[in-house]
Amino acid sequence: MTTTTPQRRKKILVVSAHPEPRSLTTSLAAFAVEHLRSAGHEVQVSDLYAMKWKAAVDADDFADHAADRRLQVMAASERATLAGRLSPDIVAEQEKVRWSDALILQFPLWWFSVPAILKGWIDRVFTSGFGYGPQVPAPYGEGALAGRRALVAVTFGARESAFSDRGIHGPLADVLHPVQHGLFWFTGMAPLDPFAVHDANALSEERFAAAQQAYGRRLDGLFTDEPVPFRSLVGGDYDRAMRLLPGVEAPGTSGLDLHVRPRG
Amino acid sequence: MTTTTPQRRKKILVVSAHPEPRSLTTSLAAFAVEHLRSAGHEVQVSDLYAMKWKAAVDADDFADHAADRRLQVMAASERATLAGRLSPDIVAEQEKVRWSDALILQFPLWWFSVPAILKGWIDRVFTSGFGYGPQVPAPYGEGALAGRRALVAVTFGARESAFSDRGIHGPLADVLHPVQHGLFWFTGMAPLDPFAVHDANALSEERFAAAQQAYGRRLDGLFTDEPVPFRSLVGGDYDRAMRLLPGVEAPGTSGLDLHVRPRG
Repeated sequence: MTTTTPQRRKKILVVSAHPEPRSLTTSLAAFAVEHLRSAGHEVQVSDLYAMKWKAAVDADDFADHAADRRLQVMAASERATLAGRLSPDIVAEQEKVRWSDALILQFPLWWFSVPAILKGWIDRVFTSGFGYGPQVPAPYGEGALAGRRALVAVTFGARESAFSDRGIHGPLADVLHPVQHGLFWFTGMAPLDPFAVHDANALSEERFAAAQQAYGRRLDGLFTDEPVPFRSLVGGDYDRAMRLLPGVEAPGTSGLDLHVRPRG
Repeated sequence: MTTTTPQRRKKILVVSAHPEPRSLTTSLAAFAVEHLRSAGHEVQVSDLYAMKWKAAVDADDFADHAADRRLQVMAASERATLAGRLSPDIVAEQEKVRWSDALILQFPLWWFSVPAILKGWIDRVFTSGFGYGPQVPAPYGEGALAGRRALVAVTFGARESAFSDRGIHGPLADVLHPVQHGLFWFTGMAPLDPFAVHDANALSEERFAAAQQAYGRRLDGLFTDEPVPFRSLVGGDYDRAMRLLPGVEAPGTSGLDLHVRPRG
């Protein structure tokens, strides 16, 4: 998990989700790719709109699924995963994730979540048997994709204060909990704090340059920054019903913060 | 907002998202439709998979968008909304939402969120100029769609305890915050507490019957149950930077609960 030097060559998958090639999202994704390659890393890119990524899970994803049989999505996806009979577009993305040492998701925050096309990448790629499920360790920290790091790089039009601790939208970490804890940590990836660009509608040249600089620093720390210290399911903090044991948390902690160990 | 009698005829839009017509999701949606119609209400249904709903926002959504022009999604969607030049599939769904007194979203929880096809319904239908934006009141409680109620009806395979207050997945209300507060309340709809069916993989006949009974009671209370008492942006609880004012909350409240008024 740790690197001895920042120069150590690593493999990074950048997934981006915006329909416009001249968008801030696409520009920041391109910046990340160049920055990481300049640092000596290998990078693959999944530009979901350019790939015309299919968003909706359906029976076509599972080659062996009989048309007249009731589709139980988790079971069908698990069977197809274990039998190597997933749709080739899904397999290609799974291979990129498996190949990678780090995953970066670059997207605009739409309705307090990822754009639908990226949700469809998550829904279709992280099948049972790949991201979790049989033949892999327990979820949350010990999952199938352990050893990888994960970074959300998100842009939104709102001001920063609206996503602060007392901001009306909710703390950004809480809004992104389904991705940070629910996808990354569940499957074993170590999530870093999100990189966010606020007030991102019609960014000035100066603010775009500043955003790139800040992003560059985060990319430089991709393998050395401290990940969010989410609690491990098997680390002794939870009971068998998957509830946090009484008294484990620091006094006054509540809500989603319960699942983060106090930072040192 | 309030009804004088439960028998008062209302209009309800049920949106469901599952690829299998024999799924629990589709069965529960059908149950809701029949139950509401039996009670004398009018119901419309958007079965997103059956409709082959397009999930990804792109330039085709906006009839007047010039192909060589940079697509700024919010601006383009606002222009198209105000000019009546949105794609007809979006307009049809906006008319259903506008027609409705209540919106029900029926879906399986996939990766701690809505399935991609439903995220695409949210992304594409709730445009600037329809769900929020110019010519409509402030968001959060006073929004464009005020006067409507909204109910999430969700199924998931996990046990109930894993989504409880101390459950590892996070409290269900927090996991659904992007929908409950970010979509419903932001646009002015009054969200009810979610209706959830846990341990929903391979439900027995008995548990399916029990789930229908419980769902029926929630549907009976659709217009009379107390909505989640989220705070209004313009109600005096927030400063101009959209942060909750100091000391407004009950002692010990933190995280996303800050934005809910204490229940009576």
